[in-house]
Amino acid sequence: MKLCRYGEVGSERPALVDAAGVLRDLSSVCRDLGPSELAPDGLARIAQADPTRLPRVEGSPRLGVPFTGLSKFICIGLNYSDHAAEAGMAIPSEPIIFLKAPSAVCGPNDDTIQPRDSTKLDWEVELGVVIGSTAQYVTEEHALDYVAGYCVVNDVSERAFQLQSSQWDKGKGCDTFGPIGPWLVTKDEIADPQQLDMWLDVNGTRRQTGNTRTMIFGVREIIAYCSRYMTLLPGDIIATGTPPGVGMGIKPEPVWLQPGDTVSLGIESLGQQNQRIRRADHG
Amino acid sequence: MKLCRYGEVGSERPALVDAAGVLRDLSSVCRDLGPSELAPDGLARIAQADPTRLPRVEGSPRLGVPFTGLSKFICIGLNYSDHAAEAGMAIPSEPIIFLKAPSAVCGPNDDTIQPRDSTKLDWEVELGVVIGSTAQYVTEEHALDYVAGYCVVNDVSERAFQLQSSQWDKGKGCDTFGPIGPWLVTKDEIADPQQLDMWLDVNGTRRQTGNTRTMIFGVREIIAYCSRYMTLLPGDIIATGTPPGVGMGIKPEPVWLQPGDTVSLGIESLGQQNQRIRRADHG
Repeated sequence: MKLCRYGEVGSERPALVDAAGVLRDLSSVCRDLGPSELAPDGLARIAQADPTRLPRVEGSPRLGVPFTGLSKFICIGLNYSDHAAEAGMAIPSEPIIFLKAPSAVCGPNDDTIQPRDSTKLDWEVELGVVIGSTAQYVTEEHALDYVAGYCVVNDVSERAFQLQSSQWDKGKGCDTFGPIGPWLVTKDEIADPQQLDMWLDVNGTRRQTGNTRTMIFGVREIIAYCSRYMTLLPGDIIATGTPPGVGMGIKPEPVWLQPGDTVSLGIESLGQQNQRIRRADHG
Repeated sequence: MKLCRYGEVGSERPALVDAAGVLRDLSSVCRDLGPSELAPDGLARIAQADPTRLPRVEGSPRLGVPFTGLSKFICIGLNYSDHAAEAGMAIPSEPIIFLKAPSAVCGPNDDTIQPRDSTKLDWEVELGVVIGSTAQYVTEEHALDYVAGYCVVNDVSERAFQLQSSQWDKGKGCDTFGPIGPWLVTKDEIADPQQLDMWLDVNGTRRQTGNTRTMIFGVREIIAYCSRYMTLLPGDIIATGTPPGVGMGIKPEPVWLQPGDTVSLGIESLGQQNQRIRRADHG
């Protein structure tokens, strides 16, 4: 299933996208798409609904984050060997875990707000893994049992903020730096999360091209690894790293996002995001 | 006011500690102590209650995290100059922001669970600042207007995990690594957050002694700084760094916490925490 939430910020309603691509309201089936709906029996209950009997959503409403209840936004740094090279960083021997502030999340097509004093605003298309069941000390073999589904994430980054100190979180967690969606695609629709093409355009120019097969640490390994350090909860998300082509790595000069720029990104089977860069109000 | 929550995990009830130190149930005044109660008008409403008319809580119930709705657990690294020295790190030129996973929080006297493969479990007594009003690009002058109150935090850390990669979050965010409480002490009771004695004992031996006056970046500066990078929300907490005396810095050999050890810590006017170290179940 392709699950999503539509409507204005704070009053989104649950929906699904049917086989014909039509958005259909799920409010008669569930109140929202939160931790209990992401659990295996919650998804099974939604799957029993006949999409053709659900009301069509008219128009082109805003899409929100496709699920609620996110308590942790875990990111894996430098997880594509060629991106580590372009960033001038060593290939890590274990997954590098950092956290994005939950207040950074936004809908897939919401504006990206460039914070005050930002000079090096950058992009990162990433495969997001959404947790459906509580996971603690799980094995790689069983890791996917704990997944509800997958989605597109743009791990928006401000490189001057990120690299000002040793800790990256400051440049990763600004408001609107975590667009998620358009959909949460349940895992039954993704035969192999390590075979997904991914891409990102800035102002119509292709900047990132990759495939999840070149991850250093795959989805199973990442889930098992993270679950050794912190219990993963339904609604948590793990962004699994970005392929080459970020602005910071462009030669001969890096390219940074500017107000008015447009960013489009997508992953095979998971849909597309479109953002416009907007300057923060200058108090 | 000294606000807290008592009862078993997941079914805590709101309470306050009256002038005589008696725990009194607040359920007749508010359903819980969450973001709307932390806001100025929420606190004002609670302050109208006559503590002597609230039911006494009998016995010695477990204390939980003294408020709910925590979405961000921000930490400031190396914020006491003498702690930076013992850690062998340079004094930072700006506050170092990192994030603790919200799943790490627990009650002030809950056991600290030593994760599997942990070899370097350490302690850090810290002043916690609890946000009461949404704060974005606030000035130092007005920063305290956004504070609901203060509390004790133990920023429990696993140094091998923390320093395995460049990013600290993995060694800071394990389950039970964020005891908060016993109370949220509202800011009207704390004349100056930069004049508070703090201490921490391990097995009855004093290990940390400090005072918030030796912070490199004070509470006002930290709030203003963080609010430039991410919107602070009611229920968010900022742990403001630890004074010298962590296990990692003890000479000639570092001292690490072991199962069975007891840790007690406190801050002037904010109460005391007591934890026992317990090994994680070994699957």
